[in-house]
Order: sequence, then C-alpha cells, then structure tokens
Amino acid sequence: MEVKLLAYTPEPLKVIYTAARTCYSARSPVEIWSDNVPEAKMSDLVDRLIQQGHHSVLEHVSFTLGISGISRSCLAQLTRHRVGIAFSVQSQRYVRLDRPTYVTPPSIGVEPEILKRFEAAMAAAWEAYRGLSAAGIAPEDARFVLPNATTCNLVMTVNIRELIHICELRLCPRAQWEIHQLFLKVAAEVLKVAPFLKGHLVPKCLRLGYCDEPESCGIMPHWRELQAEGKLPNPISRLQDNG
Amino acid sequence: MEVKLLAYTPEPLKVIYTAARTCYSARSPVEIWSDNVPEAKMSDLVDRLIQQGHHSVLEHVSFTLGISGISRSCLAQLTRHRVGIAFSVQSQRYVRLDRPTYVTPPSIGVEPEILKRFEAAMAAAWEAYRGLSAAGIAPEDARFVLPNATTCNLVMTVNIRELIHICELRLCPRAQWEIHQLFLKVAAEVLKVAPFLKGHLVPKCLRLGYCDEPESCGIMPHWRELQAEGKLPNPISRLQDNG
Amino acid sequence: MEVKLLAYTPEPLKVIYTAARTCYSARSPVEIWSDNVPEAKMSDLVDRLIQQGHHSVLEHVSFTLGISGISRSCLAQLTRHRVGIAFSVQSQRYVRLDRPTYVTPPSIGVEPEILKRFEAAMAAAWEAYRGLSAAGIAPEDARFVLPNATTCNLVMTVNIRELIHICELRLCPRAQWEIHQLFLKVAAEVLKVAPFLKGHLVPKCLRLGYCDEPESCGIMPHWRELQAEGKLPNPISRLQDNG
Amino acid sequence: MEVKLLAYTPEPLKVIYTAARTCYSARSPVEIWSDNVPEAKMSDLVDRLIQQGHHSVLEHVSFTLGISGISRSCLAQLTRHRVGIAFSVQSQRYVRLDRPTYVTPPSIGVEPEILKRFEAAMAAAWEAYRGLSAAGIAPEDARFVLPNATTCNLVMTVNIRELIHICELRLCPRAQWEIHQLFLKVAAEVLKVAPFLKGHLVPKCLRLGYCDEPESCGIMPHWRELQAEGKLPNPISRLQDNG
Repeated sequence: MEVKLLAYTPEPLKVIYTAARTCYSARSPVEIWSDNVPEAKMSDLVDRLIQQGHHSVLEHVSFTLGISGISRSCLAQLTRHRVGIAFSVQSQRYVRLDRPTYVTPPSIGVEPEILKRFEAAMAAAWEAYRGLSAAGIAPEDARFVLPNATTCNLVMTVNIRELIHICELRLCPRAQWEIHQLFLKVAAEVLKVAPFLKGHLVPKCLRLGYCDEPESCGIMPHWRELQAEGKLPNPISRLQDNG
Repeated sequence: MEVKLLAYTPEPLKVIYTAARTCYSARSPVEIWSDNVPEAKMSDLVDRLIQQGHHSVLEHVSFTLGISGISRSCLAQLTRHRVGIAFSVQSQRYVRLDRPTYVTPPSIGVEPEILKRFEAAMAAAWEAYRGLSAAGIAPEDARFVLPNATTCNLVMTVNIRELIHICELRLCPRAQWEIHQLFLKVAAEVLKVAPFLKGHLVPKCLRLGYCDEPESCGIMPHWRELQAEGKLPNPISRLQDNG
Repeated sequence: MEVKLLAYTPEPLKVIYTAARTCYSARSPVEIWSDNVPEAKMSDLVDRLIQQGHHSVLEHVSFTLGISGISRSCLAQLTRHRVGIAFSVQSQRYVRLDRPTYVTPPSIGVEPEILKRFEAAMAAAWEAYRGLSAAGIAPEDARFVLPNATTCNLVMTVNIRELIHICELRLCPRAQWEIHQLFLKVAAEVLKVAPFLKGHLVPKCLRLGYCDEPESCGIMPHWRELQAEGKLPNPISRLQDNG
Repeated sequence: MEVKLLAYTPEPLKVIYTAARTCYSARSPVEIWSDNVPEAKMSDLVDRLIQQGHHSVLEHVSFTLGISGISRSCLAQLTRHRVGIAFSVQSQRYVRLDRPTYVTPPSIGVEPEILKRFEAAMAAAWEAYRGLSAAGIAPEDARFVLPNATTCNLVMTVNIRELIHICELRLCPRAQWEIHQLFLKVAAEVLKVAPFLKGHLVPKCLRLGYCDEPESCGIMPHWRELQAEGKLPNPISRLQDNG
C-alpha cells in the first residue's frame, strides 16, 4: 500500500479561519484574508469550532491523494463514504491485470502453511483469468474470477470535515486492519502539511470521552461503565434503551 | 406556522430492520421482509444501531412534510441542511405577494410599543412592494424590499438519518426559536407514525451525555465540568485544547 | 438476480405535483395536497418539469428495493452512485459464505469449454475459503480469496431524480451487461407503481436526441453526425473540441 | 458585488488528468503524476471527458472564493446548490448590521422616481432595525425587518463538476440577473488560473446544441424547432410529451 499526497488547498488553516471569521464579522472575506493573523490564533479558533461540532467550515479545504496497492475489499469499504469525498478508481473493465498483484492479510501471512494455501489460491485465480483472456473473454467478464485480494489504484480527494468523520470510524481498532492502516497513512500525509489537525484525526472515542461501540477495545471506557459509576448523566435515549 | 405530514415510506420500522438484517444475514432482503418479526424486536435492533452510530440504515425511510408560514430567515437556516433532505420552496420570483404575511418574533410581540414599531415597518415594506409592482417592476425585483419576516411555504422531504442530525442541532435551546419550534412540530408529526423514534429526535446533549456547545443551557452538564470532576476521561483532542 | 420493490413513497405523482405547485403558488402545500387534481394534469406537469431539467422536485419520492444475487463487480459499479441513494449491503466481514454462490457472465456461459474452466475456478476459490476458515482465519480475511463473481444481497433506496440519472447511464447498451440488467429490472418494478415515469427511465440518448458517448450503438445518431449534416448547431464547447 | 479567488487546488489540469488516467492505466497515480505530459495533451483528454459526460474526475479540483455584497435574495438561490459546494455565510444572527448596505436591482435604478421610492423603503427598514436594536431586541430578531436587498458576504468553495453544472443553469439569460452576474464573475476568476475550462463554463444550451427551457432566448434554437424541421430525432420521452 502506497499513499502519497498529490495536491491540497494551499494555506488550509488560513482558508478555514477566513471562512469561519466571515460568519461572525462585518468585514468581507477578502479583507479578513489579507489580515496577518498569527498561526496560533487561527489554530485556536479552528480547534474550538471542531470541538463544538461546527464542522461546515472544514469543507473548504481538500486533500488529493494517490493511493495504490489496496485490495478490492478495502476499496468496497472505502467507497461507502460518499459525501465530501471523490474517487477515481482503476477499472477492472478496461485494464487487463495479467500479473498477480494482491494483498495478503496479516492473519494469513503469519503461518507458513496457511500462507502457502492462500498463495496457491491466488496463483489459481490468475491462471483462470489468463485462461479466460486467452479464450477471448473480455477483461470485464474475465475479472469475475479475480479475488477480493486483487490490488487496485485510485486518486481520492477528501475535505477535512469528511476526513475527520472517516478517521473517527476507521481509526477505531474495531475497523478492519486494511482500511485502518490506509487512514493512518492518509492522516500522516495530511498532518505533514496541516499540523493544526493533530488531535482531530482520531478515533471517535477520543473525541467523545468514551466508547459507544458494542464493546470497548480498552483505549477509553464504555459509556455503560461511566454511567454505572454515576459519572455520565443518563440521557433520555439511553434510558429508553435500558428499558 | 403549519406543519403537516403528507407522505412517508410505509412500515418504516420494518424497512430499517430489513436493511439492517440484510447486512448480517445469509438470507435475502425479500426473505427477511416476509418474516413476521415482533415490533419490539425490530425496535430493539434499531435503538442499538442508532446508539452505536450505525446510521446509514436510517437513510431508507423518508418523511414528506407540507410546511407553511415560516419566515425567510428560518428558511435560510433550514436550507443550509443539504444531505438526505429535499426542498421545494415557494418562489418570490414567480409568486406575487401582495398581502402582508409575516412572522412576528416573540421578543417583539411582548411589548406593545415595540410591536407597533415592527408592524409599521411591515406595513411600509408591503406598501413599497405594491408601489414598485404598480410601477411595472417584476416580482423578482420588487421583492428586494420585502423583509426577512415574510412568510413562505415549502414541501420538505427528509430521511431519518438527517432528521436525527437536524434535531440534535435545532432542538438545542441555543438554536433560534423559530427553527427550534419548526422541528418540535416536525418531530411531533413524525412520531405519530414512527413512534420507535421516540428518544432519538432529541438535542445532541441527550445523546452525548453532556453539552459540547460553548455554554450549557443547564439540561446537561458541560463536558468541561464532567472532566474537572474527574468523571469523563480526558481525550487527546481536549488535552490539546486545554494547552 | 432478484429485484423486488419493498416500499415506496405513496401517491408518488401527487407528492411531486404538490411540491412543484408549491413553488409557483400562493396556496399552501396542505391546500394543494387536498385538491382533487386529475392524474393526467399532474402527469403533464411532471413530464414538462423532467423535460426542462427542473429535477429537484423529483427528490421527494423514493423507492426501496430488495436486491439479491448480483456480483461484487456489479456492486462496485452500483455503489459509485452516491447522491439520492442509500445502500445496506450484505457484509463479507460478518457473513460466512460457505456455499459457492456466484454470477456467471453470459459470454462465459456460451461455450461449454470456457464455462468448465470458470466453474473450476469458482470451486477452487470456495475450497480455499473453506480451508482458510477451517484453519481459524476470520471471514473478514478468508474472503480475500473469494472472486468478484461472488453474489451479494442488498437493500437500495433511490429517489426519482437519481433513478432517472442512473437509467440515463446504465440503460445505455455500452454499460456493463449486469448493471444494465439490474436497472431494467429496477425500472420494471418502479413502473408498476409509478407508470407516469414511462418514457423517463431511458438511456441518455433518448432524452438528448443524440448519442454523446465516444461511439453510438445505433439507437440514436451521434452528435458529430448531426453536426456534420448541419442539423445540430455547433456549440462553443464543441467548436473548441474540434480545434 | 466583489468576487475574488482566495485559494484553489494547485495544478488543476494535472490533478484531473492524473485521476482520469488512473482509471484506465496499470500504472499508479504517483507514477502518472510524475510524468511530464504536455499541457495540450492533458487538456484534450479533459475536454473529451467533459463532452462525454464523464464528470466525476472533475470533483478532485476545488476553488475557494471570497464573495461580498450580494443580496439575501441571491444568497437564497445560491444556497440551493448543495452537492460539491460549501458555504460560510455572514450571520445576521451574530453580526449587527447598523449601516444600510443593500443591492439595487437594475430595473429599479433606471427610473429616478422608482429609485427614490426604493431608497426610501431601504432607509425605513434600517430605521426600524436600529429602533428595535435600541429597544433591546437581539440582532437575530431585529433582522426580521431587514429587506431581501440587504447585502451579505460569504466564502464559497465549489468543485469543477458542480461549477460546470451551476454555469449551465445560471449563465442562461433566463436566470435572475444577480446570480447570472455572480457566476460571470466566478467564471472569470476561475478561468484566470484554469484556462482549460474555457468553453465549459457556459449555459446549458451551448453544450446541448439546443435550448430545453420553456422558451429559447435566441442564442440557440429550441429543441421543438429542430424537431419540427426534422433535424433532431424524436426521442421516446418527447414523443410521449407530444401525446
């Protein structure tokens, strides 16, 4: 898996700051834009907005990443995100994939015996693919034998609002390992040029103060625990849930 | 302000249940749909999904409401919601608004002196509107003199996912009174036919267990309070905020 | 492949008519809703709106369909549609797929020799899947050996605006056969209860009056042809394209 | 009205080209990105994609504009665009608007007598606003007397896909003069840094080859005309419309 930032909205902090200030100011965005505001002051405002859930100003800044070598399983999860994000994905309809290129899950790579079985399955799938191609079957139909493990490439553009939302879900240790790894890499690339997002590209429990998944992984206590200890007020929606 | 449910996806609970079960079942949606599942069991599953933030299944059910008599100010706030929601709004370009019809904010209605001033302003605005119309100005330009208080009508369709999100924001007592009142009425209409949503159409603090706005209104404690008392773990993003 | 309409916004024509009339009327949506407008009159208005590209009123009506037995390849294409559409898809992470269930492309089914090779590849893939499962690999990793041909089930909800857009693209004979077939079935289900959409769930060439894909399939002439014969005015954007 | 480009995705043509090539290539986006492709070749590909309606690759590039001095009427039209676009708008709830700042429609400015009446209405509205403010009414309620003509400022970010779509609608001479003028300025700003979009930021008739609005303004013939002359094939959906 390779993840590389190709392009992004320049001066991301200043863009968000200008958008946010425009909402509460009599001055025009062009005037605010030309102010010489210290980075720390802009960063403070953006921190506060994110914390209070006023996320629409985060839509003004996007990051475009070149991604290669993720599995089609990972792609299926990734493309379920639909708002504030764009994908251009390598087509199995148009691109002939003659060489076996696939992702091996870590759980499979650990044991030599299991790995061997997996690699045999990969070899068999590509042999079938080449066989069908040789028999005149078009790539769009030959690919029906290719496995989920098959790698693909894509260009992805995501704005900060959606990126924060995706990190909340996919940086959770309960997320599947591959998409978890993908967004660790995406976050690392983004933080290089937008260090003000440090502390915001995190799993959801680190924002909430507790876990609201079925079971906690241990990073943060589950809300049921906090409530049982009388630490978290019992909201209506949870009262209902408890009967 | 009048809010009336015109149409909605029939059997909303069964639709969501079928969608959710399809994700975790080897059986087809048509088979699951024809199961005779007790309401309470379906409702339990939906409660759990909402609580855990697995909200995409809520997109399968929509409500269509006829709304009349809200101000253009309220409309401006309302139409900032963009995903999972659709609006068809009475046009000031095409509809001639000869009679003064407007919304009076409660703060203005309280004092007779202030109310009189407000009503004079309304009368003056419509006099100007009629004057411009009489002089041959088209409605699309004559309306430039009409006030924010001017009422409008619309048809709005919203799915449950977005409705929960909007209620989180707009049922907060910090929201403006008019949109707050609008969504109290929308929620009341929806709960008549989808009582399983009781406990879910609530301000965000009732879901979180604390307030994350700048200041709490008192319904729920602010997260700063809970943290100061050692009740809520100190997440990374908040550590950063505190310095 | 099985496609069955599970639920839809009742009185779809009346919902759209009421939304459209609300835009151009001084009367409220509730008043318009209670009018007893003849079906033909409502249908005429909707036809005109669709033709003129005023499609936002079509967002008020949605159809929820149970779909089973499409391939993961088809799913990948389907889920690229993102706006005005919702999916709940059978998870390969949580559902163990022990029995081989797959889609065979027609081009492969034609020749017994090729079909045999394809079926052997399917059998091998599932043998590998069961082997990995038996060795203790979780479904989320074992599925890496499953082919694109593997079937899946889903619940899909789509509003009319998006459905018209998807039909424009996917009912084109250049679309892949499986998603083409899927939307023929979806359209058939929808037309049973919304016959006023007849003539609107069509490939894009039937709306434009010409083909704007790279090559025409023959149903309609290509715009280059019409222009060469002096039948279609030469728009600026095409002038540029021609040099 | 002032419109100024504040920021945009750098190397917009190369971003789109890389995204488009990734779909049809065995090479990775990072490899394609580092190719040294001549501008003309990239531009040709993008022209072709736009023409064929393959617009999703255009979502990777966004433009952020500072806009000031448009009327609230114009804002209401503008914010009906919802996908691929983001707004941060000066709030009448939080910003006190003591000085009269408003937009005068050209049709009103032409005749001194009418203009005088309009300006008197503006003066009266602001006098009422200041009166209510002085009486202790909060800006969020005092603004109910402010007219549609009141100016506002905003930051808007829009991707190329949505910008092309908006220009199709709003550069039509049938669009309202103010939003028409706004997008002439937006297009001018964008074309300075993305000249490859010349010929694509145009009203819809220039792409279609005919007008599909109720009546043609004369730039291009109406499709009814072309059909009557036997120049445009008679598509199914129009056959139906014609009875």
